[in-house]
Amino acid sequence: MSGQLTIVGLGPGPAEWITPAADATVSMADVVLGYERYIARLAPRRGQIFEASDNREELARATRALELATSGKRVVLVSGGDPGVFAMAAAVFEAVDKKPALANDIDIRVEPGVTAMLAAASRIGAPLGHDFCAISLSDNLKPWATIEKRLRLAAEADFVIALYNPASKARPDQIREAFRILSTIRAPETIVAFARAVGRSDESIEITTLADAPEAICDMRTVVLIGSPATRAVQGRDGRKWVYTPRFARDE
Amino acid sequence: MSGQLTIVGLGPGPAEWITPAADATVSMADVVLGYERYIARLAPRRGQIFEASDNREELARATRALELATSGKRVVLVSGGDPGVFAMAAAVFEAVDKKPALANDIDIRVEPGVTAMLAAASRIGAPLGHDFCAISLSDNLKPWATIEKRLRLAAEADFVIALYNPASKARPDQIREAFRILSTIRAPETIVAFARAVGRSDESIEITTLADAPEAICDMRTVVLIGSPATRAVQGRDGRKWVYTPRFARDE
Repeated sequence: MSGQLTIVGLGPGPAEWITPAADATVSMADVVLGYERYIARLAPRRGQIFEASDNREELARATRALELATSGKRVVLVSGGDPGVFAMAAAVFEAVDKKPALANDIDIRVEPGVTAMLAAASRIGAPLGHDFCAISLSDNLKPWATIEKRLRLAAEADFVIALYNPASKARPDQIREAFRILSTIRAPETIVAFARAVGRSDESIEITTLADAPEAICDMRTVVLIGSPATRAVQGRDGRKWVYTPRFARDE
Repeated sequence: MSGQLTIVGLGPGPAEWITPAADATVSMADVVLGYERYIARLAPRRGQIFEASDNREELARATRALELATSGKRVVLVSGGDPGVFAMAAAVFEAVDKKPALANDIDIRVEPGVTAMLAAASRIGAPLGHDFCAISLSDNLKPWATIEKRLRLAAEADFVIALYNPASKARPDQIREAFRILSTIRAPETIVAFARAVGRSDESIEITTLADAPEAICDMRTVVLIGSPATRAVQGRDGRKWVYTPRFARDE
């Protein structure tokens, strides 16, 4: 019997942001693998095996999922957000690239989800209404010089910038260095928004400026959105502020 | 009574990609507004009013939705994909920016969805596994010189590039001009993927190279993904090709 591996995105947190397709795929799995925080969002059905792992060793988890599928099982590997954005889908194909025989007998699929920056943007207004980019600040994955170059070029291109993994205990200060680099190109009054734990009970949103951004609290559960020069704030009801980037760009 | 306006993303097409939150929001609306192709995906409940419009006049539609909400109704404005990405949410805040009184008495919300590039990427593998950007090629909305500058800087930054609205009947050739610009920076063997009508019965996926990309068929329902120098293809079962961008970037 031929096995299946589907890498599934569970969205940013709450069940109401899990697509019916993702939900159905998880329901029909024999084995569900994933980082323990994502696995904890799901309830196993009778006969299902759930296997939680820690947050590291993505390649080992991907290889294990491929091996289980090769044995004929229907395997689901869960990811937060969308599995293709800084997440497990790339780890699976990397494992196949290193050892092609892992994929010989299985059907691989990817099931998309709502990635964190979309949920973050929805709480802030429409900051991603015009051209934008997404950069992971984790320098476990790439040299800082590469991040610095990308930040500069993204700022010059007038992209709205979404930063994933902006800070962790091991690297609390890189986000401030990122703001310093962006400040050499973007104005101090550029809008910056911090969206933390969106969709969770401890969700918090902070809207500030590039000049004041280094004071904000920021961790691995935060998405940081840096406005383009066109990004604007408008007043909503009860003094609430909405941030949007106009669909039109005028001649410069 | 105070009204509500929620701008809701219906995802790329099929019902299985509409989040339960989006579905519930539409179900509870008094009035649902939107472009006729999106409205056609939904079935009105008893007592609901559906109002379909054409694809232009986004600002007029946004203003109408705000006015209906001001009259005390629960109004939903639907968008394809995610409402915050090149879509209706920015039009609503632009309308509020022009006429702040429109938002005085209403509660505005945005309900995120799966945007087209995520669904496209899921069919191709994990092309967005590393830093990426999204650019709309529609020059109804910005000067071509701005698009050209962004394409160059995005290529220099080694972003994977997602192009929305790559071609229409009115501008069939700009996408080829975009490939020409990118070819001055990226190698001819750079992977390019065309994902058309993802999730629909006429879905088609084409994986090719930058050198051969100008020959591909491309329209308003296509998302074009241009790989970074790190993006790779691997063989899956039955000669199928998967494209991914590794999570790690090595020192350059």
